[in-house]
This record gives sequence, C-alpha cells and structure tokens, in this order.
Amino acid sequence: MSQPTGDIGLIGLAVMGQNLILNMNDKGFTVVAYNRTTSKVDYFLENEAKGTKVQGAHSIEELVSKLKTPRKIILLVKAGSAVDAFIDQLTPHLEKGDIIIDGGNSHYPDSIRRTKELEAKGLLFVGSGVSGGEEGARYGPSLMPGGSPAAWPHIKEIFQKTAAQVNGEPCCDWVGETGAGHYVKMVHNGIEYGDMQLIAEAYDVLKRGLGVSESEIADIFNKWNTGVLDSFLIEITANILKFKDDDGEPMVSKILDKAGQKGTGKWTAVAALDAGMPVTLIGEAVFARCLSAIKEERVRASKIIAGPQKEPFKGDKQQFIDDLEQALYASKIISYAQGFMLMRETAKELNWNLNYAGIARMWRGGCIIKSVFLGDITSAYTKTSDLESLLFDDFFNKAIQTAQPGWRRVVAQGVIWGIPMPAFTTALSFFDGYRSEIVPANVLQAQRDYFGAHTFRVLPGKENAKLQPGQDIHINWTGRGGNVSASTYIA
Amino acid sequence: MSQPTGDIGLIGLAVMGQNLILNMNDKGFTVVAYNRTTSKVDYFLENEAKGTKVQGAHSIEELVSKLKTPRKIILLVKAGSAVDAFIDQLTPHLEKGDIIIDGGNSHYPDSIRRTKELEAKGLLFVGSGVSGGEEGARYGPSLMPGGSPAAWPHIKEIFQKTAAQVNGEPCCDWVGETGAGHYVKMVHNGIEYGDMQLIAEAYDVLKRGLGVSESEIADIFNKWNTGVLDSFLIEITANILKFKDDDGEPMVSKILDKAGQKGTGKWTAVAALDAGMPVTLIGEAVFARCLSAIKEERVRASKIIAGPQKEPFKGDKQQFIDDLEQALYASKIISYAQGFMLMRETAKELNWNLNYAGIARMWRGGCIIKSVFLGDITSAYTKTSDLESLLFDDFFNKAIQTAQPGWRRVVAQGVIWGIPMPAFTTALSFFDGYRSEIVPANVLQAQRDYFGAHTFRVLPGKENAKLQPGQDIHINWTGRGGNVSASTYIA
Repeated sequence: MSQPTGDIGLIGLAVMGQNLILNMNDKGFTVVAYNRTTSKVDYFLENEAKGTKVQGAHSIEELVSKLKTPRKIILLVKAGSAVDAFIDQLTPHLEKGDIIIDGGNSHYPDSIRRTKELEAKGLLFVGSGVSGGEEGARYGPSLMPGGSPAAWPHIKEIFQKTAAQVNGEPCCDWVGETGAGHYVKMVHNGIEYGDMQLIAEAYDVLKRGLGVSESEIADIFNKWNTGVLDSFLIEITANILKFKDDDGEPMVSKILDKAGQKGTGKWTAVAALDAGMPVTLIGEAVFARCLSAIKEERVRASKIIAGPQKEPFKGDKQQFIDDLEQALYASKIISYAQGFMLMRETAKELNWNLNYAGIARMWRGGCIIKSVFLGDITSAYTKTSDLESLLFDDFFNKAIQTAQPGWRRVVAQGVIWGIPMPAFTTALSFFDGYRSEIVPANVLQAQRDYFGAHTFRVLPGKENAKLQPGQDIHINWTGRGGNVSASTYIA
Repeated sequence: MSQPTGDIGLIGLAVMGQNLILNMNDKGFTVVAYNRTTSKVDYFLENEAKGTKVQGAHSIEELVSKLKTPRKIILLVKAGSAVDAFIDQLTPHLEKGDIIIDGGNSHYPDSIRRTKELEAKGLLFVGSGVSGGEEGARYGPSLMPGGSPAAWPHIKEIFQKTAAQVNGEPCCDWVGETGAGHYVKMVHNGIEYGDMQLIAEAYDVLKRGLGVSESEIADIFNKWNTGVLDSFLIEITANILKFKDDDGEPMVSKILDKAGQKGTGKWTAVAALDAGMPVTLIGEAVFARCLSAIKEERVRASKIIAGPQKEPFKGDKQQFIDDLEQALYASKIISYAQGFMLMRETAKELNWNLNYAGIARMWRGGCIIKSVFLGDITSAYTKTSDLESLLFDDFFNKAIQTAQPGWRRVVAQGVIWGIPMPAFTTALSFFDGYRSEIVPANVLQAQRDYFGAHTFRVLPGKENAKLQPGQDIHINWTGRGGNVSASTYIA
C-alpha cells in the first residue's frame, strides 16, 4: 500500500462540510472526504470536487488509512450524539497523538468532556467554532479552535490558511483549553443575536416612530455602513430592505414577524446566569425572539391594549437619525463589553487562558458579526491584554461618552412613542448601573435580612462597633424575632 | 406496643422545621420530630416544644413506628442529596400509600424525578414549596404542595390549617402533578426577586433622582402601602428606611450594595429561557443582582465614566411621585403577567393541571410577596379560569391603561437623569412589544435567511404564488449562492 497523502480528513458532506473541503483544497491541502451515506462521497467527487485533489473514503478505516500522521479528522455533523458516535467509531483506528476536531455547533460542556475523554486515551481533541455560514466555509470562515493545546501546532497552518483573512491576518487563532473554542463560538452567536436585535429595533423606531419607508431606511443603513457601524449585518440589512417583491412592495414587509430562538443565543444567556454576569443585552435579545414567537397572542393583545396617544415628531428628523446611529453604536459597545465580561469570568472559573485580542481578531472577518468595530476591539485588547472592560479603554470610553446624549434622547423618545426597544434600553440601564458606585442593592440586602435573616455587610467607610467589616451582620429590624441568621433557607 | 398517635412526622430541626412543628401543634396535630443529630430532638422537646403534644424520635424506625397510617413525613432538610439520602433511609420502613413530603427549596426537576421513583415503589410523594421564612413557618406560611395527587386528601387538612389564612381562606391548595409545587414556589421566588428590584429602583429614583431622604421615602412607601401597592414588601421597606443607626443615620445607607443571586431567581430565569417565554422582568432583576455583585469594578468604572449633566428637576415633585407609584404598579402587573405566562407554558409542556386562581390565593398571604394585588389576581382567575394573560382581564387592563402615561414619564425622566431602571424599562418594553401586532422580527428572519438560508414564513395577508402560507420560504437575496436551505447549521 502506498504512503498516505491526506493532510486532513472530513466527515459529514452537508453543504458546510463540502464547502470547507473545497476551501481547504483551494489552499493547497489534500482533504479526504467521508460520509456515512457513502453515495454522497461519490457524488461529491464527481461533481463539486471534480478536478480537485480531494480524495474519497467509503469507510472509517479507509479514511484513517489515507491520512498522514498525526492524523487530523474534522467532524462536521449534527451536534449531539452523532459527534460521540463518530468519535467512538474513529478511536479504535487512531494512534497516540492523532487529532479529532469537532467543527459543529456543539455545546461547550460536551467539548470539555470530549477533550478529557480523548486525552485519557492518548488522543487530542479540538472543538472549533466555525462561523460564516455556507459562504464563509467556502471562501474563508472564522475559526475558533480550542481543546488540547498540543493539537494546535499540527493544525495551525491548515486552520489559519483556510480561515478568512483581514489585512493579511487570519481570522483564526488558538482560543484556549478544553471547551474554550465552542464557548467563544457560543458567545459569538449570543452577540450576533444582540447585534441583530439592535438593528431590528433601529428599523422599528425609524419605521413606526419616524415613519420612514424601507427604502429610505436602507439608505440610512448604507450611510451608517460607511461609519462606526460598518459591518456585514448593517450591509445585508440595507440589501434586504432594498429587496422588492414582484409587486414592488418591500419583501421584508411580507415576512412573518416570528423568530426562532432555541439555539446558542439561549445557551449564552443561561451561561451568563450561571456565571453571575449581567449579560443583559443578549438576554433581552433572546427574550425578544420569544415574544415575537407568540404572534397570535400579540395579535389578540393588540386589539384590546391601547398604546400612548401618537404625537407627531416635532424635533429635527436628521438629528434624530444621527442620535439613533449613536444609540445603536453605544448599545453595541455595551453588548460586546458584556460578552467579554462573560468570557473573562468563565475563563477565571475554568482556568482557561483566553487571548482576548485574538478572539476579537477571529471575529473581525469571516463571520456574521464581522465589522470594523471588531478591529477597534482588537486594538483595545492588543494595547492592554488584561483590559478589565471595553469601557475602560480610551477609545471606547470616548466613543460612548460622545454617543451618550443622543442615546438617551432616542430611548426617551421611543418610550414616549411606545416603540419597544428592549435591547437599547437594557444597554442604557446597564451603562448607568455599571458607572454607579452605589446601586440600590443595599435595599435588597436590608429586605433579605429583614424577612429572612440573610445578613448583610457594611459599606466601606460606614464601619462602627456594631457594623464590622468582613462580618455577616444581622439586625433585629422589628424588635420581634430572634437574632438567628438563616443558613439553608431562602425565603 | 401502643397504637401510634402521630399525625405527621417532621425531619430536620433547624429553625424552619421547629417553627413548622410548633405551628402544626398549635393547630391540633400531633407531630413526631426527628433530627439526624438526635441531641437536637431532646433539646427541642425540653425547650421550645415543652408543654406541647410534640413527640420525639431518635431513629427513623422510631419515627415511622409513631405515625398513624398512611404515614406522612415532611423533610425540612437542605435541598439536594440530603433529601435523597433521607428518602432512601425512609422507604424500607414505609408501606404502600405512605407519603413523603419534601418541604425544602428543591429544584422542580428533582421533585418530578422523586414523584416517579416513589410512585414506582407504591409510595406517594409531595414536593411542597414553603414560603414566609421563619415567621411564616411559625404562624402561617404559604404552602404550595404538588406531586402525587392521591396524597392530597390525606394531607389537605393539616396543610390548610397550618397555612396562613386570608379572609378565612387558607394560603394553600393543591398545585398540580409531579414537580408543580416546587415549580410554582420557584416562580414565586422569581417574582419576589422582581418585586424587590422594582422597590429598589423606586427608592433609587427618589433618592438619586429627586433627592428625597430615606425618611421621606419611608413616608411615601407608607402612603403607597394604603393603595394598590399595599404589600408586605412595601411595608417592610418603609420600616427599613425608617430604621436608624445609633448615630441617627439611616441603617440602609450603611449596607453594602452587593446582593446575592444564585438561587431560585436564577432558576426561574433559566426556566423561562428553556420554555421560550419572555419573563424579562425577573431576568433583569437577577442580572441587576449580578451587576451589584461586581462592586469593585463598578467603583472603578464610576471614576472614569461620566453620566449625563445633572439637571435639576423642573416638574411637579408630587406628580412625579404619583407617576412613580403608577410605574411600579404597572411594572408589577407585567411581572406577574409574565410569571403566569411561564407557568401556563410549562403546564402545557409537562401536562400539569394548574389552578391559577388557587396559586394566586396561595401567594396572597403567608409569603414574602403577599399583597392586596394578589387578591385582585385571584379574582381575575376566579372569574376566567383560562385567562390568557393578566393584561386581558378588565381590571388589570384598565389599571395598566391608567398607569401608562405616568409610567412613561418616569422611565423617560430616569433615562435623562441616568438612573438605572432595568426592571421598569424592561417591563415597558415588554408591554409595548406585547401589544404590537407586528414586531421587527421580520428583519431578523430576513437576516437569518440571507446569511444562513434559514427560511421564513409569509405574513398572513401577504401571500402570493411565491409566498405560500405554511411553507418555509427561502429567497436568493443576493443573486449569488444557491437555493439550498440550511438544516443542521446555525450561523
């Protein structure tokens, strides 16, 4: 038998898998393709992959036999049990140091588990987020690999050449240990939910509030796309708003306003709650999709619940549009600040070494949230690798200060109009809370101690003989009841 | 051996357990007390329980032998493995039809599992929320029992007599199957988080916005406590705000503004995300606690992030305070509407028959969220047992319409002042979204179809030859790319 010549194997010939193979082939790598239904392999070789160096395999054994060592095999199959099933089929045929890569949308706890299981067998595991959809996979996705650090030197060249390039830099770098790659991909998707919701709210305020037509909104978005909001999502939304059905009506106005939500956005919100990090904008974006989904109930509600008296807008229309741009920008800064807070907290908990500048660089191109903005975040973290918050960076601090007055005007106007802006408003609430030395949680702590003896601590500067620093303090607020503090019971 | 005379057994002699025993004893029941550290049993009998009918047990066998059949045993131990451990110890000594009751703060999936496990052994299980803290346990808690329906007739009298009474009605009724009791308790706690956050925000707006002192805020709250906001939490907050330290400063102003949050509030938010229900107010209340917890980061942020120019309030102060009362009331209506939406959805998913009027009645007294308001919710669900939403009830519909102008004025003013009001604002966003026949989720669906071929559906009334009702429609937005729609991949 001849020496194997395959640089990398790929299992799963759906559109994403096929496109990723063709992309890697274009970059000079020899890819071995396998699919459970093997007729798909033949069809692929005779059609999309015709004339390329792509090799086919009709069994796991054949796939493995065609790969150079250490073998690298990417799974692009449905997240969940299918990934475990292929790993189980592969492992008996692999040798120490071989690398299994899961490129699907796996939940990060699964990737943590798989890393440990495969490392215990002497194998290496990489869980890699792949973003950019079909087109990204074909021409340059954003790749977010994490898992066994020892795998990185072996896959670095293939991954970085296959990924999208921005200013000569690949949108791919090593993310971190165990489940870090899929974790970062999850946060990316959560942020994507947030970005999309912000754009939808801006559209709504322009349309229902200011009475601007779809086509004019497209022009506004196209203009924004030349400034601080320059991004793929603003660009495609402008294209969408320009797209007309055959009768000349904007296609978007014919689309049912019911969005799906049970995906990675929800995972991010749950991860935020678990980590105790206030990632409110993604949370509201997910809930906004939930609210959209109960369309029939909303229709019934719309008939019996009146809004405010609609008053014509008396201000300067262009000024308002400029304010809205700033409101979107400021809210976006908050959303990314929250996302990075979440990653920072999780990295601390799970002992991951995350490279934040690298993460921003990976997101800068190839993926759905790609933007000029992410270049600025890359710069911020390149300048200060342990930056506590995006809001502590000079550039973003100034940006949000500049945006602040317009942001407040837009939110106040939307509140008066009765246009829902859950993402804009939660971002502003977070901003005002985050910059508050004192928030009213002292009242919560007093209530909890009053009704449940849950104790509190003293505010620095207010210590005295009864209020000792570092002590759990209980007050007998009523004169009744004891001085016993609660332990296992929450009210 | 003499005939057993115990009506009910109780395991776990922490304060809650002791108080519940004394309460049941007062109501005429013979309680048998057991604790793993048996010296606690002796101490209890010789002190708090001296002169009562309470009997002690020094082993599980003795406990069981002293109970009339079908035996009823309440566990008041730490949620988690301790509950399973006691169940395992108990079951070998029990007979068909005996009832184990978990009165701890268990997570409802555990109660679902325990119901099934015990029913498979011929035993009955009840998971009961117990709310009201130590004082509630002693003098009348809110009890929310669910689990094996066959258990209810045997425990009904004890439970309903032990519970708080409002207008001669007990704050206890059968909630529903398997984990329904603990589920409803969880939602109760989530709503409690929301109510507390709303009060804290009102305090903050009055103090930082309007410049009102703690003592004056107490007067305002005391006045509110005679109107639509009449409730335990408003009452105790007024008491808290009046409470002065020895130096005359309000005690509340000396309390560290860092609140704990990893409890049942978080569970409710996660349950909402899992159910796909927009329970945004509880979500924001939990996140507000998260934000409070990163105190040190906030202190640093407060030094480098400026807020808006503080402008003196030019309006009518009393009008603003009245508006604030309405804002709190309206937000509270939204929070409870959301909580009941969540219960409705979960009941549908898990096939529970929930009695919503009964749930409101259980919460009306004995627990932390007890209020006149819950009497109005009881009336709404008594009138219409399958009420789709609180906002569809005439009373609440009118109430929120009346509150609406003031609510908007308060939120707009807070936005201009820079006072964070995450719960007030998310409630308003929900209200405006809920009453919107069309929300901008059409834009999200177009984006998802554009970048990921995720398809959309046509808006009713906009159907045509290409846009067929009930079809998953994909548009080739760019002229490039194929017409393949995505299946397993989310962008």
